[in-house]
Amino acid sequence: MSETVDSKQKLREICRIAARVFYEKGYDGASMQEIAEAVKLTKAGLYHHVGSKDRLLFEIMNYGMDILDETVLEKVKSIEDPQEKLRQTIIGHIDLVVRARDMEITVILHENRSLKGPLRKKINARKKAYIHYLEDLIAQVQDKSGHERLISPALAAFNLLGIINWLYQWYRPEGPITQEELTKGCVDFFFRGLLGGPQVPTTPAQDQNPFV
Amino acid sequence: MSETVDSKQKLREICRIAARVFYEKGYDGASMQEIAEAVKLTKAGLYHHVGSKDRLLFEIMNYGMDILDETVLEKVKSIEDPQEKLRQTIIGHIDLVVRARDMEITVILHENRSLKGPLRKKINARKKAYIHYLEDLIAQVQDKSGHERLISPALAAFNLLGIINWLYQWYRPEGPITQEELTKGCVDFFFRGLLGGPQVPTTPAQDQNPFV
Repeated sequence: MSETVDSKQKLREICRIAARVFYEKGYDGASMQEIAEAVKLTKAGLYHHVGSKDRLLFEIMNYGMDILDETVLEKVKSIEDPQEKLRQTIIGHIDLVVRARDMEITVILHENRSLKGPLRKKINARKKAYIHYLEDLIAQVQDKSGHERLISPALAAFNLLGIINWLYQWYRPEGPITQEELTKGCVDFFFRGLLGGPQVPTTPAQDQNPFV
Repeated sequence: MSETVDSKQKLREICRIAARVFYEKGYDGASMQEIAEAVKLTKAGLYHHVGSKDRLLFEIMNYGMDILDETVLEKVKSIEDPQEKLRQTIIGHIDLVVRARDMEITVILHENRSLKGPLRKKINARKKAYIHYLEDLIAQVQDKSGHERLISPALAAFNLLGIINWLYQWYRPEGPITQEELTKGCVDFFFRGLLGGPQVPTTPAQDQNPFV
């Protein structure tokens, strides 16, 4: 392992632990001393790795976007069909928000009022690139469906992000809804909202099979 | 005006201004001194009205739920048709999140990690009551449609809240989407996701009227 890879791993480890501290205490409420203790470094050692508290917050957010790129977008890159590519992107993104390991990092990504100036601009540019990726994919799915658009790709993309990013507020893996049910429910709901299908069956409620 | 009404008005004024300060600086980042200056009171005067910083945050959140009750839920109370009642609830809730006057209060409602103990419990109980109201209404709409349920009322309610509560992250009234377009887009998207309709027209894309 080269020193660069090692120090990247170290930085990521710091980011994961610091994200948990920020998540629990808030950015302003957490001191660099507390974070140093949590990552088992001296305060000087922590500053050596991250530069400043601002920079640490930036690194956490940047790592959050890296995870999205590496674990979701890289994997769907080779899928040609836009609808399947979008579906897999949604599944991957939900997994990221829901699984405990990276939850804090994903949450902190959206509390970026604490970040200022050029660091904020850099993160916002990465977020915008992802939104544009979703919009493009949504527009392709709409075009391929052969029907007129029922919603603008931009509004559909933001509705999708709202659904996914709200999950951390309420979804608990140990609760009554399995991750599989959750994912299928969200994906189907989104695609019905986007494309208006599948058609509603016309069976009256009283004729429904109670075992379905 | 009785003194009670007066002091309620004063408390609400303090809440509105303090919400703006918390929104800009974060709960931990804002001091009671700064808030006192913003509401043009002495620090002692501020404490007289709100008791403590914790209590102030609680009062802001409680006020946020009052606004939802008074400006949205009261108005739709007499609507009998569940689908129209749900539609008007969504329109009212979007208006609350989007209009500048109360935006900060609505945002702070969802940053309740800073609130502890019984105060947190009280706010969560009010939030839960609203979620149950939405779930009930959604279930009624599904039952009345006469079709089998395409999504659980709970998941549909949380998806709806995700869409609405995400708006403050991206929607700007001065941007390219009018509030009317936004509201119609979100409402139609949600009802398609919920009920699977309206049916997709089968016109191929190339035959579309470009002026529609």
